Amino acid sequence: MLPVDSVLAHADRHFEESVSRLCDLLRIPSVSTDPAYAGEVRRAAEWMRAELAGLGFEATIRDTPMHPMVVAHHPGPGGDGPHLLYYGHYDVQPPEPLELWTSPPFEPAIVEAERGRRVVARGAVDDKGQVMTFLEAFRAWVAVHGTLPVRVTVLLEGEEETGSPSLVPFLKANREELKADVCVITDTNAWDIDTPAVTTRLRGMLYTEVTLHGPSRDLHSGLYGGMVLNPINALARLLGGLHDADGRVQVPGFYDGIEDPSAEELAMWRGLGFDEAAFLGGVGLATPMGEAGRMALERLWSRPTADINGIWGGYTGEGSKTVIAAQASAKVSFRLVAGQEPMAVLDGFRRFLEERKPADARIELRHFGASPAYRVEPGSRFLRAALDGMGDVFDRPAVLVGSGGSIPVATYVRKELGYDSLLVGFGLEDDRIHSPNEKFELRCLHNGIRSHVAMLGRFAALGG
Amino acid sequence: MLPVDSVLAHADRHFEESVSRLCDLLRIPSVSTDPAYAGEVRRAAEWMRAELAGLGFEATIRDTPMHPMVVAHHPGPGGDGPHLLYYGHYDVQPPEPLELWTSPPFEPAIVEAERGRRVVARGAVDDKGQVMTFLEAFRAWVAVHGTLPVRVTVLLEGEEETGSPSLVPFLKANREELKADVCVITDTNAWDIDTPAVTTRLRGMLYTEVTLHGPSRDLHSGLYGGMVLNPINALARLLGGLHDADGRVQVPGFYDGIEDPSAEELAMWRGLGFDEAAFLGGVGLATPMGEAGRMALERLWSRPTADINGIWGGYTGEGSKTVIAAQASAKVSFRLVAGQEPMAVLDGFRRFLEERKPADARIELRHFGASPAYRVEPGSRFLRAALDGMGDVFDRPAVLVGSGGSIPVATYVRKELGYDSLLVGFGLEDDRIHSPNEKFELRCLHNGIRSHVAMLGRFAALGG
Repeated sequence: MLPVDSVLAHADRHFEESVSRLCDLLRIPSVSTDPAYAGEVRRAAEWMRAELAGLGFEATIRDTPMHPMVVAHHPGPGGDGPHLLYYGHYDVQPPEPLELWTSPPFEPAIVEAERGRRVVARGAVDDKGQVMTFLEAFRAWVAVHGTLPVRVTVLLEGEEETGSPSLVPFLKANREELKADVCVITDTNAWDIDTPAVTTRLRGMLYTEVTLHGPSRDLHSGLYGGMVLNPINALARLLGGLHDADGRVQVPGFYDGIEDPSAEELAMWRGLGFDEAAFLGGVGLATPMGEAGRMALERLWSRPTADINGIWGGYTGEGSKTVIAAQASAKVSFRLVAGQEPMAVLDGFRRFLEERKPADARIELRHFGASPAYRVEPGSRFLRAALDGMGDVFDRPAVLVGSGGSIPVATYVRKELGYDSLLVGFGLEDDRIHSPNEKFELRCLHNGIRSHVAMLGRFAALGG
Repeated sequence: MLPVDSVLAHADRHFEESVSRLCDLLRIPSVSTDPAYAGEVRRAAEWMRAELAGLGFEATIRDTPMHPMVVAHHPGPGGDGPHLLYYGHYDVQPPEPLELWTSPPFEPAIVEAERGRRVVARGAVDDKGQVMTFLEAFRAWVAVHGTLPVRVTVLLEGEEETGSPSLVPFLKANREELKADVCVITDTNAWDIDTPAVTTRLRGMLYTEVTLHGPSRDLHSGLYGGMVLNPINALARLLGGLHDADGRVQVPGFYDGIEDPSAEELAMWRGLGFDEAAFLGGVGLATPMGEAGRMALERLWSRPTADINGIWGGYTGEGSKTVIAAQASAKVSFRLVAGQEPMAVLDGFRRFLEERKPADARIELRHFGASPAYRVEPGSRFLRAALDGMGDVFDRPAVLVGSGGSIPVATYVRKELGYDSLLVGFGLEDDRIHSPNEKFELRCLHNGIRSHVAMLGRFAALGG
């Protein structure tokens, strides 16, 4: 076993150079959504490729219909240890509105703040700063031991902020080359600056559009009102019945197959001291909604939802129009958790609508997306290794958390490449990703590098 | 008493001249909504004024901020008989789409059809043809007896098709001059070509806009879904509860003060043989909605409703957006019947919303219109006289009907001038008002003239 302490010490000694290299990367305005920046996106890819090549990776730029992938392979020390795939993205969100930035978005500023220094720039944390946590960990390992302790493949995407259109085709086309045992994704948050976290639960989603058709044309509400089906009344009644008084979703079979979090998981979440009042107060609310009898983090991370995301029908202009509309529509989405099968939920929702709709109503139901929830089993040995690695460098133990949002790459990797992902990131809730004055605490950068150094050591210790 | 039969005989003999005069009026394109036709609207007013002057009326054109009123007074035979105000309008809807007309809209065509001849033109029935029914009745009385049998004031409006913006100010400003005992409005339908009708019930209306406010900004449905108030879910639930399973509106106090129609009225309606299946089938429906245990005409004419006329909130474009909107809105209107006070219904609706809204929701409630229902008491002596007059000329007795729509002038006359209106018209359901190929059956024109001749005789017979 190659020793880890000397690697950590090297990373600490050379931290200012790590900061400086991050700033170099942040100066490249690799905005993937704007075709005008296509050349800059490629320049960032080339920068990443050169850095990886300098660390002994066999590193290539791979063209796609839009922005290139960077793929790099390091053989590690040989032998039958595990093979890791590291995923990150080198593209960034557009910086607008520019006038709200306190310093130019592509001129990284090192600023002293209440938690020490931070770097302010577009991409500081999402995802350039996070990518540099594992790149600098690789650098320290190579500097001290002349190699990485495990076999590593790196996949860096340049289209994450535009919805990753090339990712799935690229995974499909390069299955053999991208074989590994587990994927490490560094694009999520720590629980707080002192508490590292692995995100082991991502909710899935089923997104639908319902249209309820009634009369063959718009009708005068005076001449017909009180005798005919009003599609907006009917749709409100149908969707108003999506939840019962306890906040339980009334779609038949909706909760089938869902397991409650383990006692251990719940205890861990309880221990996080989530401030429900602050969470709600931040968006002007005071009262938790959702399922009765479940604590906040449980509702957000391990329970499914039904939300109407949009609704429209009839007259929506100023003043009045006495119309009974021929139809009404709504976007209805379901956040799904482990155990729920999206197509079974779709079937249940169709039954819900058909069984409850009034006579004369015709239901049209479309769906725009259906992805199952993502969950890493708490027993996974790679998860254990990651937790232990972070435990080596943080004072507090790492926690298992969930995320209500989706991180599609984890789902894609499981589906296309056949293995799990560890979502290990070092961002903070207040990092202002996608907003002006995005920042990354240098303490987070530093702890991130140290964590990846230690995790690599722990992965190596797993052996074959 | 001046004899009526000779007047009817004169009207019959000169009917072709009446048709010819209606055609003259129909040739004037008095489209009130289009400023380009303002001169034509005035020409129509002048045509009406000249006709009335020719019958011995003291007839004037009265300017308003938009289109002129025509006001004319005939003293009648003197004495203390009743004083009638006749209301109609000489403006018409735009004729578009022109390509759907089988003959030019302002070149009246006399066409032979299954029920005899009809005149096809814009305004054929609404309201030029209807106005000519009483104008030609006046003409016959004056021709035979040298006078009208009662004192008559005529008020003809040129803005009815643009929402009558000058009407209320004009009534207010000319209360003394427009004093009368009862108003005769000829702008409604007969029950069918053989069955005359007086419309004694018009539903009123309260039109509101509800906005339900939740979070202080739009939220990501993944990061917040299941923990926060979703305003669209909440609005759907609130408005989905507007009716119970029996179709009863759940607004507190909603039905207070409403009386059921009399047994006589219900029997009359039942006798009309309303074809519910055809009514619904005409708009692609098969199942009557609304209050259980009430027949169709009762629901349409004598029962109040709650209809959502429009709803909007969140994302309504193509595809998906995982948003929890900060607010959601709906237009909600109530058709009101006699006994309901619009402001009390508004208060009840506010209570309904406030009592049922979830914690954290803030309700904003506006209203755009509030008019009480209009009802003429079946015992009114003028109503009796009108029914008797129509009974004199039709084989079938006249029926009392309701209308689900509103005819604001009746409400305005009651409010501003202080007397009731008799809604006596001779249109048919299939006359295509406001649509291409508007028509008026000449049989209806003829029966309308004869009815007004007879009704004038009956009004005169009431004495002082």
